[in-house]
Amino acid sequence: MKINYVVKRKIDLILICFIFIQLGHAQKTDEEQIKAIYNTALTKGKSYDWLNYLSNQIGGRLSGSIQAQRAVNYTKQQLDSIGLDNVWLQPVMVPKWVRGTPEFAYFETSPGVTTNIPIVALGGSVPTPPTGVKSELIEVRAIEELAELGEEKIKGKIVFYNRPMDPTQINTFSAYSGCVDQRYAGAMEAAKYGALGVIVRSMNLRLDDYPHTGSMSYGDVPENKRIPAAAISTNAAELLSTTLKLNPSIQFYFKQNCKQYADVESYNVIGEITGSTYPKEVMVVGGHLDSWDLGDGSHDDGAGCVQSMEVLNLIKETGYKPKRTIRVVLFMNEENGLRGGTEYAKVAESKSEMHIFALESDSGGFTPRGFTFDGPDSSLEKIKSWQGLFEPYLVHMFKKGGSGADIGPLKNENIMLAGLRPDSQRYFDYHHAENDTFEHVNKRELELGAASMTSLIYLVDKYGLTLEN
Amino acid sequence: MKINYVVKRKIDLILICFIFIQLGHAQKTDEEQIKAIYNTALTKGKSYDWLNYLSNQIGGRLSGSIQAQRAVNYTKQQLDSIGLDNVWLQPVMVPKWVRGTPEFAYFETSPGVTTNIPIVALGGSVPTPPTGVKSELIEVRAIEELAELGEEKIKGKIVFYNRPMDPTQINTFSAYSGCVDQRYAGAMEAAKYGALGVIVRSMNLRLDDYPHTGSMSYGDVPENKRIPAAAISTNAAELLSTTLKLNPSIQFYFKQNCKQYADVESYNVIGEITGSTYPKEVMVVGGHLDSWDLGDGSHDDGAGCVQSMEVLNLIKETGYKPKRTIRVVLFMNEENGLRGGTEYAKVAESKSEMHIFALESDSGGFTPRGFTFDGPDSSLEKIKSWQGLFEPYLVHMFKKGGSGADIGPLKNENIMLAGLRPDSQRYFDYHHAENDTFEHVNKRELELGAASMTSLIYLVDKYGLTLEN
Repeated sequence: MKINYVVKRKIDLILICFIFIQLGHAQKTDEEQIKAIYNTALTKGKSYDWLNYLSNQIGGRLSGSIQAQRAVNYTKQQLDSIGLDNVWLQPVMVPKWVRGTPEFAYFETSPGVTTNIPIVALGGSVPTPPTGVKSELIEVRAIEELAELGEEKIKGKIVFYNRPMDPTQINTFSAYSGCVDQRYAGAMEAAKYGALGVIVRSMNLRLDDYPHTGSMSYGDVPENKRIPAAAISTNAAELLSTTLKLNPSIQFYFKQNCKQYADVESYNVIGEITGSTYPKEVMVVGGHLDSWDLGDGSHDDGAGCVQSMEVLNLIKETGYKPKRTIRVVLFMNEENGLRGGTEYAKVAESKSEMHIFALESDSGGFTPRGFTFDGPDSSLEKIKSWQGLFEPYLVHMFKKGGSGADIGPLKNENIMLAGLRPDSQRYFDYHHAENDTFEHVNKRELELGAASMTSLIYLVDKYGLTLEN
Repeated sequence: MKINYVVKRKIDLILICFIFIQLGHAQKTDEEQIKAIYNTALTKGKSYDWLNYLSNQIGGRLSGSIQAQRAVNYTKQQLDSIGLDNVWLQPVMVPKWVRGTPEFAYFETSPGVTTNIPIVALGGSVPTPPTGVKSELIEVRAIEELAELGEEKIKGKIVFYNRPMDPTQINTFSAYSGCVDQRYAGAMEAAKYGALGVIVRSMNLRLDDYPHTGSMSYGDVPENKRIPAAAISTNAAELLSTTLKLNPSIQFYFKQNCKQYADVESYNVIGEITGSTYPKEVMVVGGHLDSWDLGDGSHDDGAGCVQSMEVLNLIKETGYKPKRTIRVVLFMNEENGLRGGTEYAKVAESKSEMHIFALESDSGGFTPRGFTFDGPDSSLEKIKSWQGLFEPYLVHMFKKGGSGADIGPLKNENIMLAGLRPDSQRYFDYHHAENDTFEHVNKRELELGAASMTSLIYLVDKYGLTLEN
């Protein structure tokens, strides 16, 4: 009987310990849980190592590329390794555009006197003829000027869009919004007036030598009327503009042999921790796995992907058991199609999944300043009541605004969409350019962003977004 | 008479225009004035060009060096060029310490098997003997461990201080404060136990290959007992620590031939706009012109100098006429003596100058997050009432805290001291190291800091810091 007594004592002790551990968890205040999240991110976070691999072992991940597929495989494997409840790939057809051999451009002030210009094709552009395009330039600051100039002054020329980003915008994304029509719709509009091609000043607040690519559309311009479009660096745009003032008849030459292929199959990478109490209420956290092909896509959006993966890792590492289902989604093809985001929302709807919250990180891996929200006012009020918890981490911005392109298709009248808002000052130094590379991401800034996202997800999970729970 | 009539009409018109312009000025709201300050900084600011010159044409500006003197000349000339009311040099004797030929270090795991280590002498250190120092290492995490180890275990060895900065501190300056005693007092304390020298893990949150220098003191250790002190990179510290665990008897070798010379004359560079109503009430804005010698001192503290100069430039460029005297002071010798700050306060006291406010920028040229204040509570309350004006610029931190080393000697019971608080995450990546260089300063971040400082100076000027004016 003694042995049995000892065994019983031991079982009692184990039970008591277990209850204490459970109480310990239950009694962690929000302050303590959030501190644990930040501390874990800053001391044992995985995001920076993951980004190192994505950036330096895989590199630029344009939709349909081998690198994009390698990124799918790698991130799925990493999500498997952190012990989530479910990890899967969601198939989606994506466009495949290939840059081809490096682009080449120069301007010619008099026959044979040429100055080379850093240039890159815009994503989705048609190629130039194999021998390139050469013609006079017509410089404009806005698409609206085309109508004033008319076909007479545009036909047979290359249109040069040169409106800079507005440096007085504190939020650099606003400056971007105020300019990006030149890149997105410049070729579509110039084609209507018989232009031979367009070149666009890069969407960059800095004066430097990096041309920045990005998406464009031909709208309803028929295939045989489409004209090649490319971006030149800001320094080149300044030089060209000055030169044109001295000599409006200089010749500009550029050549690119990019190509659009048929769509190919790719994947959204998805992993989740199933909620203990409300498993059918889904919270999404995500970024996009594809990137442009010039740099290695570290800020856009490798950072957002590894931060989103880190959210689930930190939830697990800090021992928090979510009541709701937390799902990381690494969306494919944000840059030139948004197919991943569209497909994810379509599948979610077809399965009648209830998404209550979606948070995207797609503004770079810089120091987090806060979040913007797009959803019901009552939910925003509830979120704002947590603002004080973020004060020690200098996360201070909680306001209405955009969320993220990939989660946009989930929009309905109940869901709260949100975007992480890192400091935006340096973002467009790197955006879509060759210098969007790993060394421009600061480890701590990346980790602070991941911890901020995790803390918000934790609070939404614990308190919900309605008044009831 | 007709001519006279026309002349009179013209004079009337000029007067009316003049009155309107004056009214225009008078009627500018605080929001408008602050917007004008930010817009001017971001579009026509001079700070970035000034910093380019200081960093790339002059370089590291250690007290007593030719570069420090060139920086004095250059900044005085630039202050002259922006049309201040007074610009002058204030003489001050400063220490002159010279690094000498590049330092050299390695560890030896077995005879002849060596690994080189990136190392730099600490500022103020004595040299090693010409043939260097070679001995076993004793690794500690804190000065307090020396007493436990005692002379028996320390004598004849090199003490290796290896306590890292705490990554969980959100404010990286707190992590710095928690570590820097090893650098500052490490040699002084180890000398008492008969150590041959000390090496210190660099004050850097990142793992990389840059050793970071900085000031140190021998306290009351007599000259013949002083031992050489140097910093090694964080990667080297990790490697060394791991190697020591495997083999505690490895030999460490280092050599440096730095030297302390007699004090030399240098200058604080000062310029001012005289106040229109209260010319005797002085507001100081400043940074320190000296830097360490390894990089070019762009963040520490070229940034603070050009931002402070920019404050006066922006005040003038935006047409604001200050009621009080605004004085920019570029202090000499913050890094290894604080002689400039001490002298400035001494002269101010001897002249019975009334300083009501002093603002220093010496935390790098990063995105401004706010200010910390050291002074009367009533003044702080008044300043906090302006906080809303900074919201559009994401400047959100207004709280009690430190100000700046150079303005510290001005402290009395009436003055309000303040420090600009930029985002601190990247500061210690560059601090006192070879990579504190111009390309690591972002133009917009630098300009936003200058605009934030100018806006605060404008408000203090306009409303004062007491309840009366």
